[in-house]
Amino acid sequence: MRLYDFAGAPNPRRVRIFLAEKGIVVPVELVDLRARAQHEPGYVARNPSATVPMLELDDGTCIAESVAICRYFEALQPEPRLMGTDARDQALVEMWQRRMEIDGFMAAGEAFRNATPGFKDRALAGTAKVAQIAALAERGRERLDRFFKFLDKVLSGRDFVAGSRYTIVDITALVTVDFAGWSKLKPGPELGNLAAWYERVASRPSAKA
Amino acid sequence: MRLYDFAGAPNPRRVRIFLAEKGIVVPVELVDLRARAQHEPGYVARNPSATVPMLELDDGTCIAESVAICRYFEALQPEPRLMGTDARDQALVEMWQRRMEIDGFMAAGEAFRNATPGFKDRALAGTAKVAQIAALAERGRERLDRFFKFLDKVLSGRDFVAGSRYTIVDITALVTVDFAGWSKLKPGPELGNLAAWYERVASRPSAKA
Repeated sequence: MRLYDFAGAPNPRRVRIFLAEKGIVVPVELVDLRARAQHEPGYVARNPSATVPMLELDDGTCIAESVAICRYFEALQPEPRLMGTDARDQALVEMWQRRMEIDGFMAAGEAFRNATPGFKDRALAGTAKVAQIAALAERGRERLDRFFKFLDKVLSGRDFVAGSRYTIVDITALVTVDFAGWSKLKPGPELGNLAAWYERVASRPSAKA
Repeated sequence: MRLYDFAGAPNPRRVRIFLAEKGIVVPVELVDLRARAQHEPGYVARNPSATVPMLELDDGTCIAESVAICRYFEALQPEPRLMGTDARDQALVEMWQRRMEIDGFMAAGEAFRNATPGFKDRALAGTAKVAQIAALAERGRERLDRFFKFLDKVLSGRDFVAGSRYTIVDITALVTVDFAGWSKLKPGPELGNLAAWYERVASRPSAKA
């Protein structure tokens, strides 16, 4: 088994934190995104989305997409449960996860990739040329502002985004807040619940993964 | 238990097909999206994303997000398995599901919501005003064209998108192809694998759900 990884990108960090919380160690191979190693034909043949992370199993199966990789390890080693316990809890984790991704993580991606010179013609991940759209960068910034306020409201009276337990949703939300920081967007200090939660999750040893 | 549903929208259809494949019948309450019933305060209080579908459990728990609702029923009644069997298979279903969603379903959403007069100031789901971006509609159309070609390639030598068995991935892909049709985008007849697969999944009784 081998995890294709890169330190300076938000998606691979989601998987690293997840593995750290489970105490799972996987051999790693670095894919240098700065050198566009994810676009090399050998890599694209195994992951046509040309994204990192990717998990290669010993039988050659390649699992791309951060949450798919997490789901593999959740099934392989359920404890500690990071993707929900019973049917109801698993569904709620999935719901909160998607809210974090759609309203937060994707908004951070819109803001960053449509405004950063190094991503000219690469406004979306993948091998196709995709032009930046200035209005989309701005839309991403506005969405993140709303997202921070929403998250602060959600965190009123609960310790973690999906409830009383730390889950994959907190990982996605933490990585989203840090990713938004790349576009110089940070939750204001008036969002006290969000600030307290951030301190709570960012101070876990896994956050350094 | 009650499913909040609307016939003329792609996301609720994903859940209806999923339930039909499992043979599960859930009492339904219609939310008239044409009348913006999803924006009514009582509904938004239970689902701040203001989206349909939503599943309300007997204890009052509200589960929004199509795939979260599907995951609930998959855990409650595993057979027939639509979200994968063992760890590896579950991960692969998740990977393909996300590829269909990101490169297909979301592209169809970009193309449709950014170009349709009725969605002026509602280019994204939710209660916030979000202006249409013409360049984003165009980007969505270009992405869908690439998506159809990719899907045709994936379906070379296999019956279903995630492999030899029908899964939730086929539901998402079917609904995506039909949703793209709203923007008058259809896979060309030269994409023979895609055409054969479409016939295979669209002719299942569940597709009428």
